Amino acid sequence: MTEFPQLAAFQRGHGVIRLVGHRGARGVMPENTMQGFEFTLACGVKLLEFDVAITRDGVPVITHNHHLTRSVARDGSGNWIEGDEPKLSSLTWKDLAAYDVGGLDGQSAYGQRFPDQAYLNGARIPRLSDLCALINRPGHGDIHLMLEIKSDPDRLKNTQARAEIVAAIVDEVRTAGLTKRTLMHSFDWDLLQECAAQAPEMPTSFLTQLPENDADVGEDEATQAGPVITRDSYHTLPDLVSQAGGRLWCPYFLDVTADTVMRAQDLGLIVAVWTVNEANDIDRMIDLGVDAIVTDYPGRVQRKLLDRGLDWLPRACC
Amino acid sequence: MTEFPQLAAFQRGHGVIRLVGHRGARGVMPENTMQGFEFTLACGVKLLEFDVAITRDGVPVITHNHHLTRSVARDGSGNWIEGDEPKLSSLTWKDLAAYDVGGLDGQSAYGQRFPDQAYLNGARIPRLSDLCALINRPGHGDIHLMLEIKSDPDRLKNTQARAEIVAAIVDEVRTAGLTKRTLMHSFDWDLLQECAAQAPEMPTSFLTQLPENDADVGEDEATQAGPVITRDSYHTLPDLVSQAGGRLWCPYFLDVTADTVMRAQDLGLIVAVWTVNEANDIDRMIDLGVDAIVTDYPGRVQRKLLDRGLDWLPRACC
Repeated sequence: MTEFPQLAAFQRGHGVIRLVGHRGARGVMPENTMQGFEFTLACGVKLLEFDVAITRDGVPVITHNHHLTRSVARDGSGNWIEGDEPKLSSLTWKDLAAYDVGGLDGQSAYGQRFPDQAYLNGARIPRLSDLCALINRPGHGDIHLMLEIKSDPDRLKNTQARAEIVAAIVDEVRTAGLTKRTLMHSFDWDLLQECAAQAPEMPTSFLTQLPENDADVGEDEATQAGPVITRDSYHTLPDLVSQAGGRLWCPYFLDVTADTVMRAQDLGLIVAVWTVNEANDIDRMIDLGVDAIVTDYPGRVQRKLLDRGLDWLPRACC
Repeated sequence: MTEFPQLAAFQRGHGVIRLVGHRGARGVMPENTMQGFEFTLACGVKLLEFDVAITRDGVPVITHNHHLTRSVARDGSGNWIEGDEPKLSSLTWKDLAAYDVGGLDGQSAYGQRFPDQAYLNGARIPRLSDLCALINRPGHGDIHLMLEIKSDPDRLKNTQARAEIVAAIVDEVRTAGLTKRTLMHSFDWDLLQECAAQAPEMPTSFLTQLPENDADVGEDEATQAGPVITRDSYHTLPDLVSQAGGRLWCPYFLDVTADTVMRAQDLGLIVAVWTVNEANDIDRMIDLGVDAIVTDYPGRVQRKLLDRGLDWLPRACC
């Protein structure tokens, strides 16, 4: 099996459970913004999760949904967008720069999920290249990227479109010289196969969520292209990920069980659970022995780990 | 009455209630650190509250307690300090640089009050001059400082010591050219008189707290040198502050009443309440019509204000 240098950064170790900032640190700073990533790095978090989609003119940009979302995006006049939410694939990179994504609409169901998130003016949807430039700055050599590729639900069966999306993203990561610090991460297993074919130098990371637990109000549903899984067949997932060539399995934290974590680790998979925000859930994931915890509240997970005598990085040897 | 240009930044206006970051943003980032101040500014907060004390060698430094505190300070080996907590006035600025104040001990009562605070390695107690340099950077011309001077309880009646402390701090603020952007803020009313005498170009800001509501576990008590106030005589406070020449009255949020807020504002005082962190308390303070809310959670207060159609800055005119 190919050894990928980036895997060690996501793997648990003696006294170490890894901490991944979700969309930066969505509980504290606007998601998928440069301001959010800078904050997350300032907290000493070394692993960044974020979402990439492609504009009409082929620019990989960092945003979660496939349309500009009313609860997140303000137009040039500072108003929440009205009418139809424009599709990302219908907008150019230049079009996107007109929208401010620095805060949440507190009247929306989505906004109410993150009442502590700071409200900035003038934050833009960044390009993947902007984030790459940030982590290529001196002092950030130990930062790694969990790069989630969002499949456009309207083009899920379009092999050509899928190949183009992957090519654009791989090209960006290669240009930035970051293939040894990046994971290719998706709910779309077909897309991950395309990643492995085009960029065998990067490991693939397989997201899963049971349909019964899909309750992320205000977000696009996870478009899962892969095996149809139910609670009854859940125990087969680690083997399926392993057979598909995955190196990480990333289950939704409410789905996962002690048995499946153990089976995945026995198969050599790294288990990274998402998105774990509440104190008792963090505790439960630590108890399950996962490798990595993806969270909107990095400070909260740091404190939980320390309280239990753990750390998110190996302590420097003396 | 002298007009101080900085007062407008702390005063409420049409649709505007002011937001002050407490010790930076203690709920999110380590208190009174440069990392915390940078985060607070990144959130679009324009008013910074922080605490200043003086080292043995006369350097104004930014820290709350008069001793290095076990729940906050780690020694050179990364361990929480043990034995007697050294007094700040017994340490030089160089001595202080050996201590890391980038995180809280989760086992301590104080640490448990802020479970989401990020845990950094390598954060130092800053000098007042470090913060002045930060806010003198381009783009920060609209930042104002609520500079709290902590009276050393052992030297409370020492007029000479008090004059020296004030002189050192005033000198620093003048050297940085920030006298038009700084308030002198304290529980020690005698010390504020000394400030007014030495630096009449800066307004004074009077902190108060009823003894019955003093419940800030893990912190030095507020050493209040001023009138002895009880619940029965509470209504006299605005007049006392005004007679003492104060321009701000800063009551503890659990003490304050609608009548006293109104009386203070009738007297021309600005009312800034501290430290308001819970959603329902923020609501209550908005309802009381205070001028400014001092908080450990700036994002939470931003969202509350916006939800109620308010802002913390006057909207740019179109």
